[in-house]
Amino acid sequence: MDKFMLTERTTLRRLPKRGEFEREAVYKILDEGLVCHVGFNVDRKTFVIPTGYARVEDKLYIHGSPASRMLRALGGGIDVCVTVTLLDGLVLARSAFHHSMNYRSIVAFGTATVVEDETEKLEALRAFSEHIIRGRWDEVRQPTANELKATLVLSLPLVEVSAKVRTGPPLDDDEDYELPIWAGVVPLGLAASAPIDDARVPDGIKPPAYALDYRRS
Amino acid sequence: MDKFMLTERTTLRRLPKRGEFEREAVYKILDEGLVCHVGFNVDRKTFVIPTGYARVEDKLYIHGSPASRMLRALGGGIDVCVTVTLLDGLVLARSAFHHSMNYRSIVAFGTATVVEDETEKLEALRAFSEHIIRGRWDEVRQPTANELKATLVLSLPLVEVSAKVRTGPPLDDDEDYELPIWAGVVPLGLAASAPIDDARVPDGIKPPAYALDYRRS
Repeated sequence: MDKFMLTERTTLRRLPKRGEFEREAVYKILDEGLVCHVGFNVDRKTFVIPTGYARVEDKLYIHGSPASRMLRALGGGIDVCVTVTLLDGLVLARSAFHHSMNYRSIVAFGTATVVEDETEKLEALRAFSEHIIRGRWDEVRQPTANELKATLVLSLPLVEVSAKVRTGPPLDDDEDYELPIWAGVVPLGLAASAPIDDARVPDGIKPPAYALDYRRS
Repeated sequence: MDKFMLTERTTLRRLPKRGEFEREAVYKILDEGLVCHVGFNVDRKTFVIPTGYARVEDKLYIHGSPASRMLRALGGGIDVCVTVTLLDGLVLARSAFHHSMNYRSIVAFGTATVVEDETEKLEALRAFSEHIIRGRWDEVRQPTANELKATLVLSLPLVEVSAKVRTGPPLDDDEDYELPIWAGVVPLGLAASAPIDDARVPDGIKPPAYALDYRRS
């Protein structure tokens, strides 16, 4: 299926033209993001926690310590909403009212489950690493059995998912276009600066290319 | 009070040394962020929606269309969790297990209420604008009475709030420091590029300084 099915929760009530349900477009946004915000309910209280993630085919993985309140709650099989937001720019209109932001965001609903299978778990951990910085995994010390035990991985099937996207210039009221006010977009994006060596890196070990020239999109 | 009180929800179960409850430190993070993630529950389903915000003293404001599902739900006085996350870097350790991210995040719990007072509402809208790009508000066409009516502003008192912060180099297991693997931090931050003029800006109107040299921190 190349499109996500619309549901009650993923149907946009406002500005439906900003909606995007093509699977490949959704995956592209997920693959560019680094942090997701996971929302869930415990004892009728809502929590929203930022965390890393990775996508493998039609699954989203998150992970952490088995002691984490969030992961323990989610592993029990409760309803979850995972949101990823990429901020692309400030949209400066001629009127205060029409100011906006350019962004691409994903909202995924579902029930997360604990990954018990050891092979899938290791593949998910590899995916977290490759998602954040491709090439790193093969160069570092691999997880031990104890480290694997100390990591809880949750899997969320990407079934009920939508994207919302705003691009382009400000949209002002007709009569405002004549005002002598500058209008346009200030593009924004996540940028890396030069890597900082850990103090205990042995002499002669230089930062790898993927750290020297780190880019997201 | 210069510190936020700890509660059941804001007490960190894991890595409590990453907790930060000083009011000024929390405000500094909120004032640097541009997007918050608002979590709430409707009919026992959790939603997490990204949106702009602004802080004025000990209140956090969010706003949008009165038609917005989120704002209508929240305006009814339901429990909300607002999270702001700033990603500061990738932490590349010698072992896969100790990879991490540097970040500063805020979680605020409470009940949002609709701002009915017209003066407070206009001040909140001014704060949204100044929060995103200082100096812009005084140069643009001000909101009309109809535009004000078409904007719903919600206020969340900053009472039950905590920050979580990770900074610095990777922390590896003792025996891994001898491995011939580069380790360190790739700093990340939101960066602006050159402003893009709207196609209908009149000749001779140049981008203002706040758009030409936009910085967040």
